[in-house]
Parts: sequence; structure tokens; C-alpha cells
Amino acid sequence: MTFNEELKVKVEYIESVLEKYLPQEEGYAKTVIEAMNYSIRSGGKRIRPLLMFEAYRLFGGEDDVIEPFMAAIEMIHTYSLVHDDLPCMDDDDYRRGRRTTHKVYGEAMAVLAGDGLLNYAFETASRAFDKLNVLQSNDYDAKTIGRAIGILASKSGIYGMIGGQCADIEAEGKDKEKVDEKLIRYIHEHKTAALIQNALMIGAVLAGANEVDLAKIERVGYNVGLAFQIQDDILDVAGTFEQLGKPIGSDEKNQKTTYVTINGLNKSKADVEALSEGAVNILKDMGDGNEFLEELIIYLISRTK
Amino acid sequence: MTFNEELKVKVEYIESVLEKYLPQEEGYAKTVIEAMNYSIRSGGKRIRPLLMFEAYRLFGGEDDVIEPFMAAIEMIHTYSLVHDDLPCMDDDDYRRGRRTTHKVYGEAMAVLAGDGLLNYAFETASRAFDKLNVLQSNDYDAKTIGRAIGILASKSGIYGMIGGQCADIEAEGKDKEKVDEKLIRYIHEHKTAALIQNALMIGAVLAGANEVDLAKIERVGYNVGLAFQIQDDILDVAGTFEQLGKPIGSDEKNQKTTYVTINGLNKSKADVEALSEGAVNILKDMGDGNEFLEELIIYLISRTK
Repeated sequence: MTFNEELKVKVEYIESVLEKYLPQEEGYAKTVIEAMNYSIRSGGKRIRPLLMFEAYRLFGGEDDVIEPFMAAIEMIHTYSLVHDDLPCMDDDDYRRGRRTTHKVYGEAMAVLAGDGLLNYAFETASRAFDKLNVLQSNDYDAKTIGRAIGILASKSGIYGMIGGQCADIEAEGKDKEKVDEKLIRYIHEHKTAALIQNALMIGAVLAGANEVDLAKIERVGYNVGLAFQIQDDILDVAGTFEQLGKPIGSDEKNQKTTYVTINGLNKSKADVEALSEGAVNILKDMGDGNEFLEELIIYLISRTK
Repeated sequence: MTFNEELKVKVEYIESVLEKYLPQEEGYAKTVIEAMNYSIRSGGKRIRPLLMFEAYRLFGGEDDVIEPFMAAIEMIHTYSLVHDDLPCMDDDDYRRGRRTTHKVYGEAMAVLAGDGLLNYAFETASRAFDKLNVLQSNDYDAKTIGRAIGILASKSGIYGMIGGQCADIEAEGKDKEKVDEKLIRYIHEHKTAALIQNALMIGAVLAGANEVDLAKIERVGYNVGLAFQIQDDILDVAGTFEQLGKPIGSDEKNQKTTYVTINGLNKSKADVEALSEGAVNILKDMGDGNEFLEELIIYLISRTK
């Protein structure tokens, strides 16, 4: 199978896991459940559950205890998009070609659907405890699942993704001069990398990885997340160039401070390269059989749109 | 000590537990953390952590493993108020005499603070796993803590509190005729009783209560929550009467359908009495030493404002 064929098969499996864990649209809470499922079914590349699954396999995990966590992390990613799109946040009417949740269900129901997804993520993850009685593997116990839930929460919250969103909102209101590289790295690391680390680390923990490997995989997540966002900044500049039809930097007044405006296009591209290589090298060091994960990382970072 | 003195001492203890688990206001996420802590520190009767603590003691619990859960349930209650107060929901500028979170920190930060509190509730609860190594009691293990986290999630989510909020929002937009007693009971049971059941059941589970007692305490929570909300509807009618200076029922056009408009004032009062008695009787059946909890329940239900 080529990488693209393998990717397609794996994403299909992830879609089936998501469907299995989505709540039934029935009862007096039907509308909020519909809004939640609408948001999840709006597509996306399912990168986070995919990375989680690959990390789990990488460290020898073989049980389906990983599945509720795969669904949970996609619910958390999705709730963050639903709330981000609200009029008081980014005020977006469309996402991936479909109307955003609040345009379809109204603002109140979109707030509630986001809350519902975040809450249901933990409800779904805690179903992993029910699997303990039927599993054969000795790689984990209730405490390991508890640790995975702790990672899920901490990398998604104020010391993870929500922290990054807070800093991002505030950076938009700041003078350009006050937005420095340290702040931009904080935003990228927390808003984007934290959820990728989350996925990889839960996969590793549930498969029984040791502490050294866990630290390594956390570093992989950092590199991938940061490289992904710098690449985003690079593509933004390319877009601006095409649109304006003039060289970058000639219209700085309208430019947001980004990794690229601070470091320049060449250094930014070199940094993406170095971060990407760093991640792949860590994986290569950990042993054989990581080819798909290595290719996936390069695929994620080196996209051109 | 009188009941009121004992209540005061216990609420002070709960405030100290909450303070212990609130996040530090520092770093790039400082603003969202400030908004979260502002919301928690806006007061309130701390009913849910109090009920949780009492249920834990009732079933013989003696460890501080209950504390992260006490903080967690107050965080969940508080996030629901922060989001409820948003302009797209109830649009309230004041709560308990203080400006609501979005009036102080802006709408975007209030959405984020609510998300932050909900997420941090699970982050805090999962810290209970860290206590396993140092605890003496054999009443629970990692699986018991996992079960408590499962209860925390399910009673707060779409099959609990969020489900009730969804139905409540939709009921407001409905023709009065379509709002029947079944729907109103659903709303009260889920929007209010579910979080009280949540508190009592987590206390019971962590103290090692058996399944029969757990079902009983769930019933107590149902009775208390429902009685509390019917009492609320009764007080609303009393308020309307005072305000309008004319008998209830003469101005039905402006009246929202409530438990009282459907069942009348006398039956409503009798139902509050019966639910309250039912809860106290279940507690009396379970043994001695529940006097404070019994008084607390009567205190909560029989308030006059």
C-alpha cells in the first residue's frame, strides 16, 4: 500500500470509532446532541486520533482501550472549533465549506454543544475503565487509565490548549511591538502542539511506554505542533504575496506579527525543516516499524495549502 | 453547636479546599485564570461540595481524597453559571450583587473561562489518583476513583445538567401549551437535581458505599433537587403576586408555564413537603449520625427567598 492508501484506510477506521462513541440523537436533549454530532461530522483530517493510534501501536498497544480516548480527543478538538467560531470569538460563518454550528443551531445551542462535547470527551474517556474486566493485556491497570485522563485534561486546559487560546486572543489586541517571539512560541506550543502531544502521550501511556520514551514522544509532539504552525504562518505570507502582487514586507502595516514577520521567510523555512527532522530522528532512534508515523509527520508539516 | 454555627464552620472548610485547588494567576494564560477564579470567588452557598462531603462522611469516608472532587463539582456548577449569564443565553449583568464574568472580562474571555473551569474540574478530579500512594484506607482504589470521575462526567453532561439546559432553552421558545409536566420534571431533574445527585453519589462511591445505598442516595438527590426547584417556582409566584398586587392566575398571559401553573400552589407545596420528607426518611433508614445532612436538606428546600 502507498502512504495515501494506508492513510485512507486508517482514517476510515477512525471515522468508525467516532461513530461508535457519538451519542444517540433522542430525548429532550436531542437538539444539543444533534449540534454536537453535526460539529464532529463536519469532517477534518482526524489528525489527533490518528497520531494517538499510531503512538499506541508504536509502543506495542493492541487493545481497543485506546478507542474511547481517540474519540475523546477529537471531541475536545471539535469543541474548541465550535467555541472559536462564535460571534464573540472569531465570528466565522463557514468551516470546511459547511455552515458553522452557531449558524445552524443558534448561538446558545452552539455554546451548549461545545460544553457538551468537552464534557462528553471525559465521559467517553472514563468508559475505558469499563474495559478493564475484559482485557487480556497486562500493560495497564486502572491507574494507567487515570493517568491518561490526567494527560487528556492537562494538555487541553489552561496549561495547554485553553492557555494558548487566551494568549492568542490577547495578542490580537496588543501593539505589534509587544508581540515577541517568546509569546508566539507560547501560543503555537499551547494552542496547537499541546493537543498533538496529548494524542501521542496518551497512546504511549496506555501502551505502557516508559518515562524516557514518554518524554521523547512529548518532544515529538512539540516539534510537530510548532512546525505545523510555522508552516501555517509561511503559507499565510505566501497567500498575502499572491493576493497583493508585491513583495512581502512592503505592506507591514496590515501584517499581523507572526513567526515569519519576526524571523523572516528563510529562517522560518529552515526551522520547519529542523523541527521536522528532529521529530523523525527521535522516532528513528526508538526503533523500527515507525515508517507510517514518520511519513505522517512529514505529510502534516510539509503541506502547501 | 447550632445548625447555623455548624454550617458556617463547614462552609469555611469548603472555601479553604476551593482556594487550595484554584490555579495560580500567572503566565501568559493569566487573564483566563483570573476570570475563572473571579467566578469561583463570587460566592454562593457551596451546596454541592457540602453535600458531597456529608455523603462521604455518612458512609464512613475519612481521607482527603474527596477534596479534589469537592473542588471539581463547584467548578462545574460555576462554569454553568458563567455560560448561562452570556448575552446569547440569559444575558445577565449581575449575579449575587457582582458583575458577571463577561461584563468584567468580555464575552470571549467568559466563554474561555467557562471552558477552562469545566476542563479544570476534570484536571482537578484526576489529581485524586496521585493520592493513592499515600492513603491508608482500603475503601477504594484507582478503579473507584475512575468510577467517581465517570459519575462526575455523566451527571454533568448531556444525560445530566447540559441535557436539562438544552430542554430549558427550547421550552422558553415553545407555545405554553406544549410545555407539560413531564417536560418540566425533566428540566428540574436534569438542570438541578443531576448535580446534587452527582455530589451525593461521588461522596458515597469514594467512601465505599454498596450499590443499594448508592441507589438510595441517588433518590435522595432527586428528591432534594426537584423539591428545591418546585420551591423556586412557588417563590416566583409569590413574587409575582406581591409585584402585581392581584391574585395569582389573573394575568396568565405573562406567566411562564411552571410546576406551579400546572399543579396549583397547594399541590406544589404538598409535593415539596412529600419530596423533602421522602429524602429525610431514606437517610433515617440508613442509620444514625445523619442529623446535619437531614437539617441541611430541610434548610435547602424550605427557604423563603
